Amino acid sequence: MQKFVSDYMEGAHPLILKALCDTNMEKTDGYGFDPYTDRAKERIRESACCPDAEVFFLIGGTQTNETVISSLLSPYEGVLSAETGHINTHEAGAIEHGGHKVLTLKGREGKISASDVRAYMEHFLADENHEHEVFPGVIYLSEPTEYGTIYTKEELQEFRRTADDYGLRIYVDGARLGYALAADPSLRMADLSANTDVYSIGGTKVGALFGEAVVFPKGAPPHFYTITKLHGAMLAKGRILGIQFDTLFQDNLYLEISRNAVREARRIREALLQKGYELYIDSPTNQIFTIVTKEKAKALREKVLYGFMEELGDGRLVIRFCTSWASRPEDVDELISIL
Amino acid sequence: MQKFVSDYMEGAHPLILKALCDTNMEKTDGYGFDPYTDRAKERIRESACCPDAEVFFLIGGTQTNETVISSLLSPYEGVLSAETGHINTHEAGAIEHGGHKVLTLKGREGKISASDVRAYMEHFLADENHEHEVFPGVIYLSEPTEYGTIYTKEELQEFRRTADDYGLRIYVDGARLGYALAADPSLRMADLSANTDVYSIGGTKVGALFGEAVVFPKGAPPHFYTITKLHGAMLAKGRILGIQFDTLFQDNLYLEISRNAVREARRIREALLQKGYELYIDSPTNQIFTIVTKEKAKALREKVLYGFMEELGDGRLVIRFCTSWASRPEDVDELISIL
Amino acid sequence: MQKFVSDYMEGAHPLILKALCDTNMEKTDGYGFDPYTDRAKERIRESACCPDAEVFFLIGGTQTNETVISSLLSPYEGVLSAETGHINTHEAGAIEHGGHKVLTLKGREGKISASDVRAYMEHFLADENHEHEVFPGVIYLSEPTEYGTIYTKEELQEFRRTADDYGLRIYVDGARLGYALAADPSLRMADLSANTDVYSIGGTKVGALFGEAVVFPKGAPPHFYTITKLHGAMLAKGRILGIQFDTLFQDNLYLEISRNAVREARRIREALLQKGYELYIDSPTNQIFTIVTKEKAKALREKVLYGFMEELGDGRLVIRFCTSWASRPEDVDELISIL
Amino acid sequence: MQKFVSDYMEGAHPLILKALCDTNMEKTDGYGFDPYTDRAKERIRESACCPDAEVFFLIGGTQTNETVISSLLSPYEGVLSAETGHINTHEAGAIEHGGHKVLTLKGREGKISASDVRAYMEHFLADENHEHEVFPGVIYLSEPTEYGTIYTKEELQEFRRTADDYGLRIYVDGARLGYALAADPSLRMADLSANTDVYSIGGTKVGALFGEAVVFPKGAPPHFYTITKLHGAMLAKGRILGIQFDTLFQDNLYLEISRNAVREARRIREALLQKGYELYIDSPTNQIFTIVTKEKAKALREKVLYGFMEELGDGRLVIRFCTSWASRPEDVDELISIL
Repeated sequence: MQKFVSDYMEGAHPLILKALCDTNMEKTDGYGFDPYTDRAKERIRESACCPDAEVFFLIGGTQTNETVISSLLSPYEGVLSAETGHINTHEAGAIEHGGHKVLTLKGREGKISASDVRAYMEHFLADENHEHEVFPGVIYLSEPTEYGTIYTKEELQEFRRTADDYGLRIYVDGARLGYALAADPSLRMADLSANTDVYSIGGTKVGALFGEAVVFPKGAPPHFYTITKLHGAMLAKGRILGIQFDTLFQDNLYLEISRNAVREARRIREALLQKGYELYIDSPTNQIFTIVTKEKAKALREKVLYGFMEELGDGRLVIRFCTSWASRPEDVDELISIL
Repeated sequence: MQKFVSDYMEGAHPLILKALCDTNMEKTDGYGFDPYTDRAKERIRESACCPDAEVFFLIGGTQTNETVISSLLSPYEGVLSAETGHINTHEAGAIEHGGHKVLTLKGREGKISASDVRAYMEHFLADENHEHEVFPGVIYLSEPTEYGTIYTKEELQEFRRTADDYGLRIYVDGARLGYALAADPSLRMADLSANTDVYSIGGTKVGALFGEAVVFPKGAPPHFYTITKLHGAMLAKGRILGIQFDTLFQDNLYLEISRNAVREARRIREALLQKGYELYIDSPTNQIFTIVTKEKAKALREKVLYGFMEELGDGRLVIRFCTSWASRPEDVDELISIL
Repeated sequence: MQKFVSDYMEGAHPLILKALCDTNMEKTDGYGFDPYTDRAKERIRESACCPDAEVFFLIGGTQTNETVISSLLSPYEGVLSAETGHINTHEAGAIEHGGHKVLTLKGREGKISASDVRAYMEHFLADENHEHEVFPGVIYLSEPTEYGTIYTKEELQEFRRTADDYGLRIYVDGARLGYALAADPSLRMADLSANTDVYSIGGTKVGALFGEAVVFPKGAPPHFYTITKLHGAMLAKGRILGIQFDTLFQDNLYLEISRNAVREARRIREALLQKGYELYIDSPTNQIFTIVTKEKAKALREKVLYGFMEELGDGRLVIRFCTSWASRPEDVDELISIL
Repeated sequence: MQKFVSDYMEGAHPLILKALCDTNMEKTDGYGFDPYTDRAKERIRESACCPDAEVFFLIGGTQTNETVISSLLSPYEGVLSAETGHINTHEAGAIEHGGHKVLTLKGREGKISASDVRAYMEHFLADENHEHEVFPGVIYLSEPTEYGTIYTKEELQEFRRTADDYGLRIYVDGARLGYALAADPSLRMADLSANTDVYSIGGTKVGALFGEAVVFPKGAPPHFYTITKLHGAMLAKGRILGIQFDTLFQDNLYLEISRNAVREARRIREALLQKGYELYIDSPTNQIFTIVTKEKAKALREKVLYGFMEELGDGRLVIRFCTSWASRPEDVDELISIL
C-alpha cells in the first residue's frame, strides 16, 4: 500500500536523528539557553538575510499561529484571513479561544490579494459604526497556502504596502515554507524578512520531528519569551528544537529536502494530466489536488492512501496526493503506475 | 428636525419613571433579591406560559448575548449565526473575546433557515477531520432580525427539531422581541418558551431605560447567577431592573407599546411605497429599509435624521427609518410629508 | 426594622430622578454621543483639575474593574492587589476570566503600602526564573478600601514614585470615592489625577441608580471605547449615565451627599465606642465594623439589618453598619437607641 | 564542572532514541492514530491497573496543566492549589490566561492537606456572599511536589473523600511522578487511578525528550481530543509521543530509571548531612534542598552548577541539587567530594 496522505507521515531527516543521538547525554540548560539553540538562531538569521531578527522555536503549527497572532493583536483587534486559512478551518477555534475574531476574506485557490484587504479596510472605515466592530490588526497569509499555491515576492510587497497604509501587521504561516521556496526560485527568505512583521518556518512538515521557527525581522513584541510560556509553547529541553533547526539550516538542507518533495509532486501532477485526470487546483508545491469520481476514488484507495478533501456535490470528489522531504522516487513510480 | 435613527433615542415609558420615583427611597437588598424583581420574574413566567422558567435580568444586549451564549457552550464549541447576526457584526468581537467562534451561515434578509443549519451539520459531520474544527453548539437567532424580518412559529419549531437532531441548543436574541410579537399575532412568547433553550426579552429598545430579561424555559445552566457576576452583568441595585420589567409586564404594556412602533412603521412603509420608493427589505416590524440615491439621501438629511446602512455600489444607499414604542403619530405625519 | 446593610439599598438622589424625568422624551443619539454626556465629562474634568482627561461612563463596579484593568495589561502581566481587594474576593474571578492573574499582597486593614509593592518587585526581579512568572503590570488600590480605610495624598504620591521606578501603572477603584473625599479633606480628586493612570468615580454607591465614571488623566488606551463595547460595558442609551453624572457633579452634589454618609457613620462609630463595643477596624468613612458576640448579633438582628463580615473563630463576629448618601439622621438615631 | 541544576539537562533514554531511529522512515497517520500510540496507551492502562482509562499524550507540563485543568472547570470555577504549586508560581499565568483563578492554600513543605481543603470549603460555603466568589472546582496536587515531598496513598484517599464530599475533582500533576513512585514503594499508579479524576505521567523529566501522558481513570471530558487541539497541545506526528511512552512503559523502564535518580539523590542527601549541611526540606525524591551561606554557595559554584531557590534573608541561601534518570554514580561521587 502506497501512502501519500500528508507530509507528516515519516519521522525526521536522518541527520536530525544523528544529531540528537550524538548530543544525547550532554547536560545543557533548559528552555532554549543552550549552544545548539543559539547556533540555530544564528543560521536562520543568515538564511533570512536578517542579522537583527529575533528568532524563537515553538513546537507545533496551531500553537505557533495562536501564540504569534495573539501577541500582535490588541484586545479590540482581529486577524484577516482567507476563508480557507488554516486558522479559520482546522485549528479548532484556537484563535477565538485566545480572544480574537478571524475576519474572513473570500479568496481564490487558497489565496487572498492585497486588494481584497484594501477593499475590506475601505468598507470598514466607511462604516459610521465601525467602532462597534472588530478592528483588523493582522493579515494572515499561509505560504504556501492550504491549497499549495504561492504568494509571489511581488504579491508580498503589495501586501506590505497595503498593511503600511492601514496600520496592519503581516504574519506569514510558513508551516510548509520550504516547499514554497523550492517551487518558486524567485522567492527567498529575505523576501519574507523584508515584507512581513513575523513569519514561521515549519519544521514539522519539512524534515523535523516537530518544531516551528518564528522569525521577527524587526524584533519581537515585549516579553515574547514569557508569552510562549503562558501559551504552553515552551519546551523544557529547548535544545531538542535547537538541534533540529541547527541541522536543517546547515548546508542548505532545508531547501534541498524541500526540493525533493516538489520534484516528486510534479511528477505526480504530470502523470495525472497525462492520464486525463482533472486538477482541482494547479498547485506548484508538494500537494496535488485532483478531481475523481467516487468509483475511481474507491478503486484507488485499495492501492494508495491519499487525502480526502471534499465532495463536489456532483458525485465527484477532490482528493490530494501529498509528497514530503522523504518521498522516494520508487514510491512515486508505483503511485504513477496505480493512477 | 425629525429623528428616526434608532429605537433607543428616547428615555423610558413614563410608567417606568413613575415606578422608579415611587419606590426611590425604599431600602431593599441588592443584586436582585428584592420584591420587585421577584414580581417581575413572576409576570414574565406568566406571559411566557412557562411557570418553571428561570428568569434573570441583565443590563445590555451585547452583554446578554455574550453571557448567555458562553454559558451554553463548551470550550470546543461555537455558535451558528447568520452572517448579518448582531453577534457577528456589531458587538466588537465580544463572543470571540469570550473564547468562542461565530460560525456563519449566509442567510437571506437577515434570516437563516433550519435547513441551512442541517446542511452545515451534515457537511461538518462528513468531514473526517471535524474533530480539528469548532463544534457547533448553539443556534443564534435574532427575533426580529437585524433587518426587521421575523421567524414564524413554524420556523422556530423546525429549528427545534433540527437542534434536537444534532444536539444543539437554541438562543433567541429578543433585543426587539416586542416588535416581532406585535407584528406577527400568530407568534407568542409561549412559542419561544416551547422552542428555545433560552431567549432574551429586550427592554432597552422597548420602553425601558435599559435591561434585558433572560428566560430559560427549561432551567438555567448551573450557577448562572455567578456567571452574570463574572461577566460584569450584575447590577448592584438589581431592583432597578426588576421595577422596569415589573412595569413592562403589567397590563400588557410591553406588547401595547410595541404595537405603537409597528403601526407607525407601517405608515412609513406605505408612504414610501406610495411615493415610489424602493424597499430594500420588506420588514414587517419597526425598521423600514429603503433604497435612495445619494442626492435624495442628502436632501432628506436636512429635515430628518435616519440610519445609514450601506452603499450599494451603484451610487445608491440603503437607509433605515426606525420607529419605537415612543414614536408619535404627528412626527410620523411630518416624516411622511418630508419623504 | 432599620436597615444599614450596604450603601446601595436606596434608589437615586431625587435630583437625578428629576433630571431623568425632565429629559425623558428628548431624542438623542446613543452610546454616549449626547450633550448630557458631554457636559458630565466636562464637569468631571473640572472637578478633577484635569482639562485633558479622557472620561468614560461604565455601568457597574466589577465590569469597570475588569474592563479598565485588562485595557492596561499586556497578556503576560497581572495586577497587584491587597488580598482583601474587591477584585480578589468578590468579583467571581472576573479579572482571571479576562486572562490576568491577581497578584496578592498581604496588606493591613484593607490597605497595602508602596513599600509592599517595592518589596514584591525586588523579589520578583531577583528571581532568575522571573520570565516564567506573571509580570506585575498594574497596582490596584481601592479608595476607600473594602474596610473603609483611606490612602492619603502622601501615600498615593509614594505609590506613584514606586510605580514609575518599576514601570507599573496605577488604577484606583473609587467605587466609594466620594466617601473618602468627604472623610479626608486633604484628599482631592486632583490628587488622584496627579498620581494615577486611571481611576473610577463610583456612582452606584454614591447617589446614582448605577454608573461608574472612568477618568484617564493622561489619556486612555487606544480605542478604549471599543474595548468597553466588547466587554459589554457600553449602554445604548448612554445619556442615562451622562445625565446622572451631570447631576452629581453640578453644584458639588457628589461631595455634599458623601458628607452626609460620613457624618452619620461617625455618629454610629461614636455611639458604639460610648456603649463599649469594640471596633474591628477604625474606619473613617461610611462603613463601621464592630465585633459582637453571636448572642448580641442575634439580638440586634431583630431590630436592624446589618452586614455580616466574618466569624472570628472565638464565638464572636464582625458586623458592619453602612450608611449612604441617603441615610436619615432619624434612622441613625433609632439605630443608636437599638445598639 | 558538574551539573545538577535540574532533571531536564540530558536528552532521552537511549532506548527511546533507538526506537525513534528504528521506526523513523515508517509512514503512519498523524495526530496519534498510529499503532505505537495505541500500544503506549495500552501499556499505561496496564501499569495504572485501569483497563478503562482514557489516555492522551501531550507535549509539555504547563500546557498539560492548563489544558487538563480548564477541561475540568466550569467558567465560574477555579482550582485549589498550594501557594507553592507550579501552576501558581512558574507557569506565567497560564491558568488565568485560560480564564480561571488559582485559589491558594498555604501548605507546608510544598504540600497541602485534605483538611486544608475542607476548611476552605466550609469557610467558602459559610459566606453569605459566596455566589459572588470563585467556586472551587478542582484540587491540584503535584506528586511529588515542587519541594520533592510526597503525598502518601492514605493522603490521596483522604483527598478523594474530601473531594467527594464537596463535589470537587482531583488532578495530580505528575511531572516527576516516577520519582515519587520510586521513593515510596507503598505508592503505586493504581492509587492514583483509584483516587484522582485525572493525573499526568511526566516524560520530560523522566527519560523522554518531552511528553506528558494524561490519564483519566473514569473517562475524559467530552471531546478532550479537540480540546487539546485548540490549546495547541496536539502533535502532528503523534507517534513521536507514542513511541516514547511505549518504550518507557515496557519492561518497567519508567520505574527503573526513576529509581536511579532517587538512589543518587539519597547519596547526596547523606553526604550533605554527614558533612554538616542543613537541609531546607528533607525530600525523599530526586531534589535535595540545602541551606548554605553566600560564600559557600559561591565557592561551590566554581565546581558544580546547582539550582538557586531563594534567599533566606539572613545571608543564607537555599540551593537545590537535582538528579535524574541519567545521573551517573561517578558524577555524584565527584559532587560529594566537592561538597
